[in-house]
Amino acid sequence: MDNKLSALRQKMRDQKLNGFLVPHTDEHQSEYTPGYAKRIAWLTGFKGSAGLVSVTLDQAAIYVDGRYTLQVRDQVDMKLYQQMKLYKDKPEDWFSDVLNDGDVVGFDPWLHDKGLVKNIREKLAKNGIELKAVSENPIDEIWQDRPEPSKEMAVPHDIQYAGETSKDKRKRLAKIIKEKQAEAQIITTLDSIAWLLNIRGSDVDCTPLVLSFAILKKNGKAELFIDPDKLDDDIKNHLGDDVKIYAKDQFESALKKLGAKKKTVLVDPKRSHVAIFDVLEKAGATIIDHEDPCQLDKAQKNDVELDGCRAAHVRDAVAVCKFLRWIDENAASGEYDELDAVEKLYEYRQEVSLFKGNSFETISGAGSNGAIVHYNVKEASPKKLEDQMLYLVDSGGQYLDGTTDITRTIAIGDPTEEQRDNFTRVLKGHIALAQARWPVGRTGAHLDTLARKSLWDVGLDYDHGTGHGVGSYLGVHEGPQNISPLGHHTPLKAGMILSNEPGFYKTGEYGIRIENLVIVRNSNFRGQDRPMQTFETVTLVPIDTRLVNAHMMTAAEITWLNIYHAKVREEIGPLLDGEDKEWLMAATESITTL
Amino acid sequence: MDNKLSALRQKMRDQKLNGFLVPHTDEHQSEYTPGYAKRIAWLTGFKGSAGLVSVTLDQAAIYVDGRYTLQVRDQVDMKLYQQMKLYKDKPEDWFSDVLNDGDVVGFDPWLHDKGLVKNIREKLAKNGIELKAVSENPIDEIWQDRPEPSKEMAVPHDIQYAGETSKDKRKRLAKIIKEKQAEAQIITTLDSIAWLLNIRGSDVDCTPLVLSFAILKKNGKAELFIDPDKLDDDIKNHLGDDVKIYAKDQFESALKKLGAKKKTVLVDPKRSHVAIFDVLEKAGATIIDHEDPCQLDKAQKNDVELDGCRAAHVRDAVAVCKFLRWIDENAASGEYDELDAVEKLYEYRQEVSLFKGNSFETISGAGSNGAIVHYNVKEASPKKLEDQMLYLVDSGGQYLDGTTDITRTIAIGDPTEEQRDNFTRVLKGHIALAQARWPVGRTGAHLDTLARKSLWDVGLDYDHGTGHGVGSYLGVHEGPQNISPLGHHTPLKAGMILSNEPGFYKTGEYGIRIENLVIVRNSNFRGQDRPMQTFETVTLVPIDTRLVNAHMMTAAEITWLNIYHAKVREEIGPLLDGEDKEWLMAATESITTL
Repeated sequence: MDNKLSALRQKMRDQKLNGFLVPHTDEHQSEYTPGYAKRIAWLTGFKGSAGLVSVTLDQAAIYVDGRYTLQVRDQVDMKLYQQMKLYKDKPEDWFSDVLNDGDVVGFDPWLHDKGLVKNIREKLAKNGIELKAVSENPIDEIWQDRPEPSKEMAVPHDIQYAGETSKDKRKRLAKIIKEKQAEAQIITTLDSIAWLLNIRGSDVDCTPLVLSFAILKKNGKAELFIDPDKLDDDIKNHLGDDVKIYAKDQFESALKKLGAKKKTVLVDPKRSHVAIFDVLEKAGATIIDHEDPCQLDKAQKNDVELDGCRAAHVRDAVAVCKFLRWIDENAASGEYDELDAVEKLYEYRQEVSLFKGNSFETISGAGSNGAIVHYNVKEASPKKLEDQMLYLVDSGGQYLDGTTDITRTIAIGDPTEEQRDNFTRVLKGHIALAQARWPVGRTGAHLDTLARKSLWDVGLDYDHGTGHGVGSYLGVHEGPQNISPLGHHTPLKAGMILSNEPGFYKTGEYGIRIENLVIVRNSNFRGQDRPMQTFETVTLVPIDTRLVNAHMMTAAEITWLNIYHAKVREEIGPLLDGEDKEWLMAATESITTL
Repeated sequence: MDNKLSALRQKMRDQKLNGFLVPHTDEHQSEYTPGYAKRIAWLTGFKGSAGLVSVTLDQAAIYVDGRYTLQVRDQVDMKLYQQMKLYKDKPEDWFSDVLNDGDVVGFDPWLHDKGLVKNIREKLAKNGIELKAVSENPIDEIWQDRPEPSKEMAVPHDIQYAGETSKDKRKRLAKIIKEKQAEAQIITTLDSIAWLLNIRGSDVDCTPLVLSFAILKKNGKAELFIDPDKLDDDIKNHLGDDVKIYAKDQFESALKKLGAKKKTVLVDPKRSHVAIFDVLEKAGATIIDHEDPCQLDKAQKNDVELDGCRAAHVRDAVAVCKFLRWIDENAASGEYDELDAVEKLYEYRQEVSLFKGNSFETISGAGSNGAIVHYNVKEASPKKLEDQMLYLVDSGGQYLDGTTDITRTIAIGDPTEEQRDNFTRVLKGHIALAQARWPVGRTGAHLDTLARKSLWDVGLDYDHGTGHGVGSYLGVHEGPQNISPLGHHTPLKAGMILSNEPGFYKTGEYGIRIENLVIVRNSNFRGQDRPMQTFETVTLVPIDTRLVNAHMMTAAEITWLNIYHAKVREEIGPLLDGEDKEWLMAATESITTL
């Protein structure tokens, strides 16, 4: 019998709970959960990046998605947990099966969103089971060696990178609060807070976020709830008098105060967890469901941020080109494995100015591992790079002036005709999107088709989105913009940064993905009868032409590729020397069908 | 002062109403409103195909969309009505402005859907105004010369055209009712009833519908509420013992009976009007919101219906080809106008076997009238067809075995280079959609992009959907399938019939549209790694190659067009004689860039 699980059950008995729900996320819905919030990992040993655990007094279930069906069995004692399919199997169904009329299931209201809780509560109620918010998370009570929240300092994000003062941002968004005749907007998402206040930090892996909550007032002033040890005089000056500082644990009483004054408050129902709503409502506030306005504003980068993005991509390209030369020279030897490559790439990026770290865990997939879309070499045993395979590397850097994300697929030795055929189809999709023009107002769901058409033509496709939003020295995955079959909700706006990353995966054999970042731009050209938009590609690294079958491409596609490579040569060439430069010259040679 | 309006106001006063809302639709949400339900036309004179009127005791407003902003001023006495924008201006805002706290606005619950009423009610309540369902529609009380509902006979839709007995359909759908643990599904949409019971009629313009309501029971039996005079012994036999016949006005008491027995009833919230919900609820029924299952089932035609569709298109093509030859020979003379052409086309269709009438009002647009997307020549003064113009003709027929809908754009005289350029772009979009392959599960919103890309490339677009669903000897516009930027909701399914009709419109100059009907087919081909779908084009009429610039087309596009014309020649050629045949041979000649 597992000690942690039995300790949890004892606490559940103390709180008169027959069941308890453990989510993967933290109180900010962070993509990269900080250590103190990795409750599933602590309880079960499971280290995947998504999951859910439901526990009763004598049973338990762990929910994981398709990426982790095997890994979970290595990391978790499956005698204790029933394995379930995340998103498909519903915890409310499981609880309904194993619990009885009159039982109570607990959940931590700071860790679950309103919509999910509503669904679970309604389903459980049909079987006479109550879903109850706990005031103390029983896991936190028994977690002995629980990591402290990060004590890293928050730092100013300088105007030379941010392009707009926090004051101006706050003033602009305060108008929305006034229009809604409300007092304040509650902001719980860390990237919104970092953007709104022009601050950055080191509290979360791969993303320069600061653990905090914020309340933006209708007068443009803000309250920031944060561990005061994270703030020195420099950042206090930077924040200024209009941003009042409070300890993070005073957030709840600030919500209560808003309620006591019978204020109307805007809360994002998708991003703010149940506790926020409960506290505000009980205290007497009127709540208006209203999307956190930082999200859409933040996604539309200003000119300074866009110039920063372009500059970061030029410097990042230098590191990636050096790495790709290293791959070309060393991969076939069989001396290096996927992890060596990750480290080598990191070494090159560390040489780049303004580099602050990787923007996500590098995906380094040799041969068949390239076909595992979310392959994490650190959670597997690294495979050797060898002659006669494809190598897929998806990586990115955080720079003070921008965030990068690039995937290249490299031929080690001679690719097969099938590999070249499929690579060329992925490339045709990539180019179709890179060259797309569309009327203002279309969404990523409309453009997604362009990236897939050349694969659909021969009955192929890929099972991931074509593009995600990218932040400005912030999350490498940000909303609300995306390019995906499901991306109907957000019309593309000028200044948004997105990835363009179609792929093709042959399970057990190889994976192909070609990813550049692009900026949405309003465009004007002769003959247009309505406002139009296009993409500007900012990633400047050669695409492996050894994998291209030019005979499958149109003249326009070949021209795009040759112009792209000419631009890479022009921009990156002067920044490389010696053999690196020679490698670049060779890698960017024009292709032709002649 | 208008007599009708003052009579209406008197009735409103009698019913203690300060306002009243008059919608365009009837109690079945019919696209073509029958005469007895054309309340707006009677009250105001406005004859458009969409609209809304709101009336108070001293003011009135009429809401029309962009198609009718000019027409409404010709047809309606604008001293009596304020002109508003349909969909943009909200009647609840207007009532809130002109009425006072404590006032009451009436509406006929048989004519409005639940969601709309909920929105209006909530908004009015904020201003202290009550929205109240009336039991007698005050317009119907004062409408002296109101047409009777059609007395046309209902007729059986034979199994040789329907392909599946009503009994089998009812059995299949009854399973859904049982799964939901309900007693019955309420069916109020006329095309659902016609499909489910394999009956047709002549009660509505352009669509062979029978005015009725139906209730499908969980045992597969049905109740049909219909004017008994519409049924002879033949159709009574056809309907059989499992379909109980009641007078149409007994529908309400049947709903009450379901409620009195405390039954659970499935009702489609988008298709059934407020009265249905109110009557059921008050009587004690439990209502489950559930989409009318006939709609999706009906859209997926069976093999007999698809063969009928193909056969109808072959015969329809004969008429359209004869008409296009007539156009080619006569249009440049300047002797005929748009209405003459409509009549000529109708004459040719009347010669076709199984023809029952037009499937919609023919759109016959010469020159600049072609740029008016919903141009109705009968509501305008017909323009002469003349040399040196484009002529756009969008028409269709109702045949016992299928419904057709085709648009062709014809060059009279020499088209300009600009016209050829834009026609070719529309054609490229049409071909891209006709040739598309996609993984099962995609929606029309994903495919819509393919039809627009060649226009987007030069900054152009068109402001209508690319395709609508088409019925089988039923509505020429049917849901739930469509191809449009907003068509996210319904994945395409094998057997659905849709139009493929990209266009381009230059206001004041010319319009271009190329429309064929297509069938969604599951497809299998070498190398596909997942289930795929394609379209089969069923319309077989030449596309005007005088408007094609082959140098703008890819080899694959030219091949598609040549193969299409070869198929037209093969299928339609043997059915034409003499000069018609000669015309077809010339019109279907291959094109080449050499």
